Amino acid sequence: MLSEAEIIALIREMAPGYVPGAEVQIGDDAAAFHITGDLVLLTTDSIYEGVHFNIPPFHISDVGWKVMAAGVSDIAAMGGEPNCALLSLALHEPPGEGDVRSLIGGVLEMLSSCNCSLIGGDVCRSAGGLALTATVAGTPPPGGPVLRSGAKKGDVIGITGSIGESAAGLHVLKLGSDDLRARYPRVVEAHLRPKPKVKAGALLASCGASAMEDVSDGLAADLRHICDESGLGCELDARLVPLADDLRALAAEVGEDPLDWALAGGEDYELLFTAPPGSFDEAVKCLVDHGTPACRLGVMRPAAEGRVMVKDSGERVDLEGVGYDHFA
Amino acid sequence: MLSEAEIIALIREMAPGYVPGAEVQIGDDAAAFHITGDLVLLTTDSIYEGVHFNIPPFHISDVGWKVMAAGVSDIAAMGGEPNCALLSLALHEPPGEGDVRSLIGGVLEMLSSCNCSLIGGDVCRSAGGLALTATVAGTPPPGGPVLRSGAKKGDVIGITGSIGESAAGLHVLKLGSDDLRARYPRVVEAHLRPKPKVKAGALLASCGASAMEDVSDGLAADLRHICDESGLGCELDARLVPLADDLRALAAEVGEDPLDWALAGGEDYELLFTAPPGSFDEAVKCLVDHGTPACRLGVMRPAAEGRVMVKDSGERVDLEGVGYDHFA
Repeated sequence: MLSEAEIIALIREMAPGYVPGAEVQIGDDAAAFHITGDLVLLTTDSIYEGVHFNIPPFHISDVGWKVMAAGVSDIAAMGGEPNCALLSLALHEPPGEGDVRSLIGGVLEMLSSCNCSLIGGDVCRSAGGLALTATVAGTPPPGGPVLRSGAKKGDVIGITGSIGESAAGLHVLKLGSDDLRARYPRVVEAHLRPKPKVKAGALLASCGASAMEDVSDGLAADLRHICDESGLGCELDARLVPLADDLRALAAEVGEDPLDWALAGGEDYELLFTAPPGSFDEAVKCLVDHGTPACRLGVMRPAAEGRVMVKDSGERVDLEGVGYDHFA
Repeated sequence: MLSEAEIIALIREMAPGYVPGAEVQIGDDAAAFHITGDLVLLTTDSIYEGVHFNIPPFHISDVGWKVMAAGVSDIAAMGGEPNCALLSLALHEPPGEGDVRSLIGGVLEMLSSCNCSLIGGDVCRSAGGLALTATVAGTPPPGGPVLRSGAKKGDVIGITGSIGESAAGLHVLKLGSDDLRARYPRVVEAHLRPKPKVKAGALLASCGASAMEDVSDGLAADLRHICDESGLGCELDARLVPLADDLRALAAEVGEDPLDWALAGGEDYELLFTAPPGSFDEAVKCLVDHGTPACRLGVMRPAAEGRVMVKDSGERVDLEGVGYDHFA
């Protein structure tokens, strides 16, 4: 069992010795890092055992990955580049060395996949279970951060990749079926180790996205955020929501509607964006050329027209009330 | 009872509308702020109900104050100026509006006392009780951050103010005596609403401090941190530890040793520092001239001489094993 000082010493030993831009790393009152330009992006995300994850099915290294992925994805959703991160780690009991190594291993694996460095944090005791907060600092894109508030009436709504996988993966894990888990590894992986779209975010910022957000609360809720911040309504075409083949197959097998996973699931960390009609196709081409699929979902409307989803049947439903609320 | 969206809307309504330096505030994926210079200080601190506080005796507004004070104090301990903060807020149950108003009121009161602004954060559900993480970003002093690693052999050890008050306040609160609480209001306030020493930190940075740290884990543990990081030993004179008159009176009344509160208590947020012998008196004068008392505690020694405290009796004891460990 490790003491607080031993935990910090171990994290320090595991973190790379040389970090570009970092002047003060783990072990002082605060971290210090150099930035280029004069604007810093800063975000924080927390996850709690029993609320956001359980161990198992999560491996403790997945937990480290996941909390950092949430923070990195917020920076990606502004079109920014993550630079450095802090981890606030709270444990109910003194941990064993192996657990700390696995957890920090997951943190570092996530961060190194996007050239981001762990430079500080905090270790303390929790009231029960494992609790983690990631703080990620980043650099905005050259044209400034892409905000939720930037959409204009008539802008086309688009999305990268396919969505609903994280919720589908959670569904498989909750069913506890090893067979399903073995046959649908991609959706399970999407839940345990979501991959923030840093490169896609930067491309969208440079290719004319007017608003952007990561899909963390489910497509319906995240699209409402863009409507709220931009003072607009929207029309989302349900038939255009990108659902992967394995997701559809799984949904059919377990008797779920795959669209529910996409609309209300969240934690996909794909990028929801808007672009002016004249730039939208160019933005999608820009993404596809760099290996990221993207497609059209609908259009931004005047606020008075509400937030509407057009279903397969042609029926128009209100997007309000669809999606994830932490306290619902 | 408020939903997640209503909590965020309320925090946004309460936070000041114009924040110098902030380009993106509450409501987007990440916050964005302008900095002067190219170096950013960044720190994070978490507190948990049942571990770091209980309500009562804490008022919920004290909890908001306290978590931000911990983060601000880390910036002060580098000689830096806090600029902006994020709050990660986790609640077990949907909160009432009054509780959110009180909590955020405490956060904003603390931050405004040191010209720091709340510009972002995260709201989610906790596994049990209230959990808060403060992230604070700041600007280093003109000569660069004052680190724990900067002490040299022969440097004089000093401290601002008087210490042990927070632990003494906790002792009063644990005894649950309204009488003691009424007669020792200052120590109770020191526990509930500790005051980070931002101005003193900046003065020490400009007046030649070689190393600095805030007293958060207790004087013994915090002095060991400076020894560890500077690769040195130390000799601390127990008779010089600044104990306030009311602290001594309380200790006598409840049969405790006030020195234990100072050495092992923590959360005082006074500044422990070192300075070369030729600059120490000047540094203390610089503090005193600006209204902050400060005094000498001992001297930094070669590592081989260990970390020693000289007691009233002249007995020399090892500082190891004295102080607070979250998992001890």
